[in-house]
Parts: sequence; structure tokens; C-alpha cells
Amino acid sequence: MGVVVQNIERADSAVIEELGSAGVATVHEAQGRTGLLADRLRPIYPSARMAGSAVTISAPPGDNWMVHVAIEQLREGDILVLAPTSPCSDGYFGDLLATSAMARGCRGLVIDAGIRDVGDLARMGFPVWSKTICAQGTVKNSLGSVNISVVCAGAPIDPGDVIVADEDGVCVVKRAAASDVLRKARSREAAETSKRARLAAGELGLDIYDMRPRLKEMGLRYV
Amino acid sequence: MGVVVQNIERADSAVIEELGSAGVATVHEAQGRTGLLADRLRPIYPSARMAGSAVTISAPPGDNWMVHVAIEQLREGDILVLAPTSPCSDGYFGDLLATSAMARGCRGLVIDAGIRDVGDLARMGFPVWSKTICAQGTVKNSLGSVNISVVCAGAPIDPGDVIVADEDGVCVVKRAAASDVLRKARSREAAETSKRARLAAGELGLDIYDMRPRLKEMGLRYV
Amino acid sequence: MGVVVQNIERADSAVIEELGSAGVATVHEAQGRTGLLADRLRPIYPSARMAGSAVTISAPPGDNWMVHVAIEQLREGDILVLAPTSPCSDGYFGDLLATSAMARGCRGLVIDAGIRDVGDLARMGFPVWSKTICAQGTVKNSLGSVNISVVCAGAPIDPGDVIVADEDGVCVVKRAAASDVLRKARSREAAETSKRARLAAGELGLDIYDMRPRLKEMGLRYV
Amino acid sequence: MGVVVQNIERADSAVIEELGSAGVATVHEAQGRTGLLADRLRPIYPSARMAGSAVTISAPPGDNWMVHVAIEQLREGDILVLAPTSPCSDGYFGDLLATSAMARGCRGLVIDAGIRDVGDLARMGFPVWSKTICAQGTVKNSLGSVNISVVCAGAPIDPGDVIVADEDGVCVVKRAAASDVLRKARSREAAETSKRARLAAGELGLDIYDMRPRLKEMGLRYV
Amino acid sequence: MGVVVQNIERADSAVIEELGSAGVATVHEAQGRTGLLADRLRPIYPSARMAGSAVTISAPPGDNWMVHVAIEQLREGDILVLAPTSPCSDGYFGDLLATSAMARGCRGLVIDAGIRDVGDLARMGFPVWSKTICAQGTVKNSLGSVNISVVCAGAPIDPGDVIVADEDGVCVVKRAAASDVLRKARSREAAETSKRARLAAGELGLDIYDMRPRLKEMGLRYV
Amino acid sequence: MGVVVQNIERADSAVIEELGSAGVATVHEAQGRTGLLADRLRPIYPSARMAGSAVTISAPPGDNWMVHVAIEQLREGDILVLAPTSPCSDGYFGDLLATSAMARGCRGLVIDAGIRDVGDLARMGFPVWSKTICAQGTVKNSLGSVNISVVCAGAPIDPGDVIVADEDGVCVVKRAAASDVLRKARSREAAETSKRARLAAGELGLDIYDMRPRLKEMGLRYV
Repeated sequence: MGVVVQNIERADSAVIEELGSAGVATVHEAQGRTGLLADRLRPIYPSARMAGSAVTISAPPGDNWMVHVAIEQLREGDILVLAPTSPCSDGYFGDLLATSAMARGCRGLVIDAGIRDVGDLARMGFPVWSKTICAQGTVKNSLGSVNISVVCAGAPIDPGDVIVADEDGVCVVKRAAASDVLRKARSREAAETSKRARLAAGELGLDIYDMRPRLKEMGLRYV
Repeated sequence: MGVVVQNIERADSAVIEELGSAGVATVHEAQGRTGLLADRLRPIYPSARMAGSAVTISAPPGDNWMVHVAIEQLREGDILVLAPTSPCSDGYFGDLLATSAMARGCRGLVIDAGIRDVGDLARMGFPVWSKTICAQGTVKNSLGSVNISVVCAGAPIDPGDVIVADEDGVCVVKRAAASDVLRKARSREAAETSKRARLAAGELGLDIYDMRPRLKEMGLRYV
Repeated sequence: MGVVVQNIERADSAVIEELGSAGVATVHEAQGRTGLLADRLRPIYPSARMAGSAVTISAPPGDNWMVHVAIEQLREGDILVLAPTSPCSDGYFGDLLATSAMARGCRGLVIDAGIRDVGDLARMGFPVWSKTICAQGTVKNSLGSVNISVVCAGAPIDPGDVIVADEDGVCVVKRAAASDVLRKARSREAAETSKRARLAAGELGLDIYDMRPRLKEMGLRYV
Repeated sequence: MGVVVQNIERADSAVIEELGSAGVATVHEAQGRTGLLADRLRPIYPSARMAGSAVTISAPPGDNWMVHVAIEQLREGDILVLAPTSPCSDGYFGDLLATSAMARGCRGLVIDAGIRDVGDLARMGFPVWSKTICAQGTVKNSLGSVNISVVCAGAPIDPGDVIVADEDGVCVVKRAAASDVLRKARSREAAETSKRARLAAGELGLDIYDMRPRLKEMGLRYV
Repeated sequence: MGVVVQNIERADSAVIEELGSAGVATVHEAQGRTGLLADRLRPIYPSARMAGSAVTISAPPGDNWMVHVAIEQLREGDILVLAPTSPCSDGYFGDLLATSAMARGCRGLVIDAGIRDVGDLARMGFPVWSKTICAQGTVKNSLGSVNISVVCAGAPIDPGDVIVADEDGVCVVKRAAASDVLRKARSREAAETSKRARLAAGELGLDIYDMRPRLKEMGLRYV
Repeated sequence: MGVVVQNIERADSAVIEELGSAGVATVHEAQGRTGLLADRLRPIYPSARMAGSAVTISAPPGDNWMVHVAIEQLREGDILVLAPTSPCSDGYFGDLLATSAMARGCRGLVIDAGIRDVGDLARMGFPVWSKTICAQGTVKNSLGSVNISVVCAGAPIDPGDVIVADEDGVCVVKRAAASDVLRKARSREAAETSKRARLAAGELGLDIYDMRPRLKEMGLRYV
């Protein structure tokens, strides 16, 4: 506790953009179904979508002091990721902090706790994935850390990792693996495009993926 | 496990349409307050609404193989109903399966588990009522069954039963009772229309339903 | 149980309006972070927002008889607040009751239980904050009370207290404190306006609030 | 609602006893992994264990009137099974009702709701599997039904079905299948006995079940 | 926040003892089914049972500083009641604080948060009703208050109120009502004793409470 | 997926034993309040207590095949740690697997999922910390991995890390830090012993920790 790491490495911004376009479901599949945050994190407005580099915050329950510290560490394209040290639903963050974060180039927030001023945040276009919405404020009395490794909603996240978030949830891509994951995501998208056309034409997955022999072998009975 | 029932009976399509127009709350009342699925099932987009015949799927946790099998059994106007054999939040279904199901005439999905690609599904107009939204994918390694009796979110559902779903949740109507339930739903709607007008005019339910004598008898005191 | 208090005092309507404009997060802060209802209460449609005087209902689980009794007690600008005597998810309230309540000047409903006909309620513009959405109806067999002190979603509420609700949740302001809370809310809003401008210009909270010395004193280390 | 079925068939008492000895996990496996009630039902004391014939109760939330009605229907060896018509945590049942039920030969209670007087119930040796423990009492104002088909904690139960309950939870065996399930349970127990000895001697499941070739084929890599 | 009320009134100790003997279910009924804390509070060991006067603590999430302040206010026969200002599962209290509290005559703890060292607490015979068991410690950085009115697990509690807790949960009795509630509890116990004997002898509640005519009138059908 | 790491390093067995004696609360504090698993993991019997080296399992939902693979990797003093790849409540493990694991020297199991045969496991003295108790069995159709890094109930665990578990929950100590943490745990225990004596004698924490000046400075008011 009580450490701020000032220099973190980030992935290539073009790679991050493309991962964001691919979206959570595709990216999660592309990296072998790892890195998904728990489904309790939901976007505060329907069309929310973002990708960026994680600036991580480990904060005590009910204390958002470290958010102020973290905002100074933000660069254009960053995303704040806050993991409380124990379960908490308080609203750590609202429109003032969002204003400050946006002024530093921040793209959004992932927080395994509460958020408030969600009407304002939606109007400002500041996307947030949170565990709950709660007007309960926090104090500024205890230290936490910024840009250390955290576990947020069940997923290990290092500072500088790529965060991708959309309607399906939030996924983290290890910084060093970003380009490789993007390559696989593109392959997956290409494969899906052709399959989508065949399925739309009425072909069955049973035939496209040649499932019938194995289903029969395993004993599926049609009656 | 491991059974696919191929020929199921369905209710009359005109009856199904009208039950859908009546909506969940009315239909649920009309059939004596039975058949409601648990309120953990919520639509993935606000205006979602559908009615159709159930094609049921009993699937192991984290395994969506039977969805492919079920899609072959779909006819125009059907709804997929998936009940996992134990609680699961994985995303069994996404835009590719929805494309395939829509090509077979499927009207939507009710699933006591997770769903993914919800942005795409909303754009495609494929409505889903699910327990959660989760990008976690599934495998295709274990058998389940299609068109057997299931309990989905607490409600017993047989293949061919009528599913009605809207903003209020999901309700199942036994196939054989569909016409009778529709008749009662119409009566209820008619009765509500006249009451609505009186209530809108400022009359009180206390008077319309003649509640005052019984409240007095039970001892309600005004102070 | 079984008591209806007919004459309750209400706060000044102009004060109530302004508290509503200030919103939940500001009002909650202005009164020393008290009076917030639990975050399980959520609005049934995104832009819902209201302020008014509480007409309270203590009702048995699964029994909405007292809602009819309470509607008679409504005046222009009132809000129904229903607290079940034990946890319940049934839909106590739908479009007919909303029609009746609106005809009496009711602005909305706060209910630590279920609600139904939410599509209709949204179209009618009748806002509701509820624990869940559930088509399950209720009976009219047991007495409760109207306009007694209740605890709703964890917050003590007296009849005539001011209810403020928006996207951030629901907050109660004690009737006698309403003017004082409004004064503090205005101060807070004024202070926030100037801070917002400075933060938007890129100034840091660390500097605006002079946090650096205390962070250093507590041992925060930059590495 | 409002029906009491007086004559129900029950399974053979010797078969029921033996199913009880086999226990929930074995019985559940023996009947193809069906009939398990949700794990939210837990015994009120650690060594609780029972088997018997279901006398079912469908009761409104917060109303235990039908329990009195059901007790009259009890015979030696029966088990009360209460499913509320919507989720409820109230304490429907306490030491007085248990005294009455025991006097009629009742072996215990399965309830997807609350229970109270659990200290007394433990001292009386009246086992209960419940969703929660809650002192909140209920009323006697609304009808339900006795000995109709219910869904209790996710499992469909008909009157006269066999209920088996122990530390692992609660399982229902269809009356007509009881003897067949018992036969399979015995086979399973016999098979387990020999396996247990081999495993205790240090042999591995990998070898006993010949898993190594299939693991290799599926690509398991040892590093 | 930041207030310690030093002189509080307490109920008569003999009355408190007897309320404790009556137990939660009886006391809760005797006072008209009010004052029950939510069923999420459970005893940390099976035979835990206590009654005493509430010394209340309002504490921030994750901060137990006020517990130290409250212990100084304890007198023989008191019970600590801790309500966090927002939901928290941290372990506010362990064996050292219990040692200190016991040295001041404290009988136990009711806490709508976490507790730790439960093995030691059981061995020391210090009973606790808590929301969870969690080793996560707390800080001592923010003020709360002692002996103010709180809402703990949904129930309003004033300092000096009587707390009764056993296997069925926790109930609060208003200090001024303690003697009256005790009188009603005794009546209830007397009435139950005679009923218990009749029920044990096989008489039915249907007959003892003369329920048959009203059940018939409401339409209960025996088939 | 699909990897088994065969050679893992373990901490010194004497250090592990002593960490186990210190217990979860002390060890968690000693290592700076890190490594605690979520409080949803509870022991299946009251006196359960253990310490050992983690053999980790990453398993698909509802599939326990990898448990068999992991058992071969066990050495005397090891503890199985199972993290499902998505939330699951199935009973992955029962008395047969426990027999096998005990024959290999296994001390117990930590599982963020379900467990069954808990009566037998208690009689065998095989301790388990699990999310739930559930008789639902699993299949053996999909690969997972053994002895890879996992996140179990929110805590990152590497194979060979030290697991400490008791009535307060489960804590992981990084293998390389074990000796250092033990040293700090001993210091903490020594400090607590002297404090415990002073507190038992009636001295107040307010005085022992010299809290009064700072409380006053922060504005605590005694009234």
C-alpha cells in the first residue's frame, strides 16, 4: 500500500483501437478465453464501448483518495481500473472526477464498486462499467496504491494492460500479448463472416461444423 | 439425457399472437397466476417483446452443443428455451447462433444462463430474456436433450407450450390451455379498460371494488 | 398494523422542487450523507427523476390492499413509498394503480418490492424505483398501515418527508430539515461549478484540494 | 388454488428407508442426475437426515394457513414439502406446528422459505431443510393448495414422491420410479465400495478408469 | 458523525433477562411483529444466545476506530450493535476487542458486517451475530458515532434498546416498551404451552383454532 | 488449457506448519492484508483447519476430470485448490476423490464451487472450504490445467504457494515469502499476547494505543 508507479508501458495505440473494434466477446475468444472480468460489472449506459490502457488503482473500501492520485498518472487513451481491497458498493467516482479524468485524456472507468452521477456521466459521454450505482460518497483518509498489479472482478490486471469493454462486459489483454491477440481476433472475425453468411442462408451448424457423426457416436437419440 | 424429440405439437398461431399482444402480466393473471418464470430473467433490450412455441433445451453447464441440435428442430414462430442442468452464467448463445435461429424462423430465446453479443442481437432484433450477460463461451463436449420437459427459472415447460415475454418477464402457457387462457385474458382486458377510465377520472379503487366495509370489519382505523 | 394517518404535514413545494433539481447525489451530500435508500432500488426507465412528499405504506408480503387505501390519502405532489413487512418481490403495483394515483396528483412510487406493467408505466410517464420487476400479482386479504414511520430499503422514512429520486437512486430528506438541506445543496452546487471549470481546464484535484502534503506525510511513495 | 387432495399414493416404506440410507448424492446419481433441489436449501442442524413421502403445500407468500390443512393429511412416514407461490423468507413453521406434525407421524419438512424456533426443532429432533432461518411470522388469510404438483426450489414434486434429504441437500424420487432407483443406487454403492478400497490403497483414478489414453488424445500436455 | 453520547438509559436488567429467556420468536410476536433484524445476521456458533442493552456504533466501511470508543461506554450487561454507513463485509472485530469488551461486562455483538477470530470467540463464549465471517481487517482513520440512533440490518435501534438474540436471529425491543413486551411474551408463552400439549396429543390446529368454517367459506375444496 | 506442470517448488514444511498454527487472521495481517480469498468460501465442518502447499486446478464449469489428473501430482502436505473457469456450484468432489487424495498425502481442498458427500468428508476428517454444498455431479469431457497460476475466489494463487485455512476463511502466502511472513506473524502474535493481557485487565484500547489525542484533533465530540 502507498505506492504510485509513475512510468508504465502501454501497448501500441493502433492495436488498442482495433481490439476495441473487435469487441469483448471476440477478444476474449481470441486469447483462449482468459481475462474476462466478472459479469457483475455492467455499463452505466447501453451504447458504452471503449478500449485503452489500464491505470490501476487499489483503494480501501469507501475511500477514493487514490483516484485523485491516479488521475495525475493518466495519459491520452488511458482507462482507470479501480479494485477495492474488500467488497464495497460506495460511489467512488462522479462527474467532477470524470471531468478531471477526461481533461487528462481518460477514456473511461472500470470499477468493481459503485459509481454516481450516472446521468451526468452519460451526458458527458464518459463510459463506466461498475458493480452498482450508488450515491454514497467516500472519504479521503487512507492510502492505497496506483499502477500496481490488481485483481479486479476476478481478473488479474497489470498497469498498461489493454482494457476492452462493451455491452458484453470487460476483458483485459496482457500488454505484451496485444498484437498477437489482435491477429487472432482478426482471424476469428474473418472466419465468423463466412459462417454468418452460410447460417443466414439456412445452413445448419450441425452440418457446417460436421457435428452429426460425433453426436451419434456419443449416443444422441432422435425420437 | 441425449434425446431429441422431433415432432412436437404447437398451439394455434393466431392464439399465440394474441397472447403475445395481451402481454405477460395479463396472461399470468388470466391463467390463475401460474407459469411465471423467475424475475432473474430480464430482456437484453428495453422494447423486447415476443410470443411463440417453446423448443426446449436441457444443457449441461458451460456446454451449448444442444443449441445446434435444437436449431434444426425450429419452425417458424418457435422460441428457444434453454434450462441448464445446474446454475451457470456462461454465454451459451451469440450473434452466429441467432443468425442461424432466425433463418429457421425463430422469434427469440429464453435462457436461465448467460448470453453474449448483446449489442449485435439488439441490432438484429433478436430478443433474449436471460439471467445475465456474459462473454464467457461454452464447449461442445457433452450431450443434453431437446424437446423434453424442463424446469426453466422455476417454471415447468413442455415442448410446444406457449411462451409470452415482454418488459415484465416471461410466462409459459400450457399448449392445451392456450385458447382458454386467451379467452380469459380478453375478459380481463375488457374489464380493465372500463376500470382504467373510472380510475383516470378520479374514482377510487376503495369505491369501485367496494372495499370500505371489509376494511372496516377487519379493523382498519383512520386517525 | 391497521392504521391510516390522514393528516400529515408536507414540506414547502418550492423547496421540494429545488431539491429535485439538485438531485440525489448532491442532496445526500448536503445532509451529511444520510437518508440514502439501498442501491437495490433502481428506476424502471433511464430518465426517471422526481421529488415529492412521502405517503408511506407498510404492507404485508404479497398483499397490496393498503395501496388502495393510500391512494385516497394522496395530494398533488405526493410520492407513494411502500415498505413490505418482510422481503418480497411480488408486483404490488401496475398500470391501473398508476392511473388512479396519477389522477390524485401522485408523482411516482418508491417500492422495496416488485412492480409490473413497466412498459405501460414508462409510456404513462409514471416513474418507479423498485427492487425488481415481476408480473406476480398480490392479494387483498391482510391489513397494513398508511402514513406511519417505515424503514424502506434501509432508510427510516416518516410520512411527509421529502423523497428525491433520479438515476443515482433514492434519498429521503426529513421534512423539517428540507429548507436547510436545500441551502446546503445550493452551496455545494456553487462550489462544484467552480471546481468543475478548474478540473476541466486540466488542474488536478491533488492541487485544488492541496492533498500533496498530507499524502506525503502519510507515506505515499512515488516510484 | 384452494384444493386439498386427500388420497395420495405413496411408495413402499421399505424402499423409502433404503433410499434414505443411500443418501442424496447416491440417489441423485442413481436416477440420472435428476430431482435435486437447489442448494439454497440447507439443514437447520448438522446431522439432519430423513426420507419419506411428500405431502405438498403450495402457499402464498407470508401465509401458512395451508400448513394446518396439510397436517391433517399426514400419515406415518410423510414429509411436508412447502413451495411458496413467490419468493419469501418468512418463518412459516415453528415448534408448535412441528409438535403437531410429529404427532401425525411426520418425519420432517422441506421448505423453500424461512423457518423459526430452530433451537427447539433441533432439540425435538425435527429436521428441516429451508432457504433461511427467520423469526418473522405469517398470517392465515389466503388459500393455497395441498397435495398438488409443485416446483420446490427448482424441482418438480408430486404428492407421494419420495423425498431424501441429508447434509448434501434434498432430492426427490418419482414415486413410480422408487424401486428402480433403489436398485441402481445399490449397484452404485457396491461399485463405489470396491473403488474406494483401491483408491485408499493409493491406486489412481487415472488408472482405475483408464483415463490416460483419452486425455492424451484430447491433447493434455505434461511439462 | 463524530459524536459520542455518554449517558444512555437502559431497561431494567431483570426484564432484559426474562426477554432473553423468552427468545427472539416469542418477543417478536409479543411486540406485534416489529423490531426483527434481517435474516442475513447469523450467530457464529450454534448455541449462541444473549440479551442486553444496545450500545450503538455507526462506523464507516472498513474502519473500526469507533469500536474502541464504544468499549469505553460499555457497562455490565451491554451489547455492542454496529451498523456500517454503507454495506461492508470486513472483519471489524476479533478476539482482542472481544477480550476488551468482556472485561467491561459486554455480553456480545450484533454487526451488519464481518467478524473474525471466530474460533477464538467461540472458545471465549463471546456470541456474535454477523452478516459474514471475514479475516479482512479494518483501519482507524475516520470518525463515526457512538450511541446515536442507527438502522442495523433494516431495524431502527436507539441506544439503550433491548437486544434479544438466539438461533432464530436478532430482535430489538424499544427500551420504554420492554416491560410491556415482556408481559405479552409471558402471556404468549402460557398460551403456547397449553396448545403444545393438545397438539402433541394429536389434536389438529384446524380444530383448536376453529379454522374449518372459514376455510369452507373461502372456498377450500377437498377432493 | 490442457497443461499439467509436474514439478513445482514448495515452501519448507516446518514453516507451513507454523503458518497454519498462526491462523488465517494473523497470517493475513502479517503479510500486509493480502492474499485473502473471498468470504464465500466456508469450511464444511466447524473445527476444520489446515495448512499446506497448493496444487492448483483450473477446471471448466461442471467438469472434474482434472481433479483426477491433479491427484497424481499430490505429495504429502499438499492442498488441492480448484478454480472453475466460470462460476459453478456443482459438486466437483466427494468421498471417493477424498479417499484418493488422502492416500496421496493431501491435507484438504479449497474450491470456489460445490462439494458433496460432506457428511462422509467430515467423518473422514478431510477438510474443505467451498462456495456451496451441492450433490450435483460433474462430467469428465473437457480439459483444464493443473499447477498453473489461477485466481481462486478473487486471490491469485501459484502452484506451491502456502494455503492457510481455518474458521476465518482461506489465505494464500506466496511461496517465496513464507519465511518472512512467518517471522512477522510471530511478532504479531507476541505483541497481541501482551495487549490481550492488558485489555483483559480492563485497560482500554483508547489508552493502550494512545488514540485520544488524534480523536480529539479530528473532532470527536463527547456529549
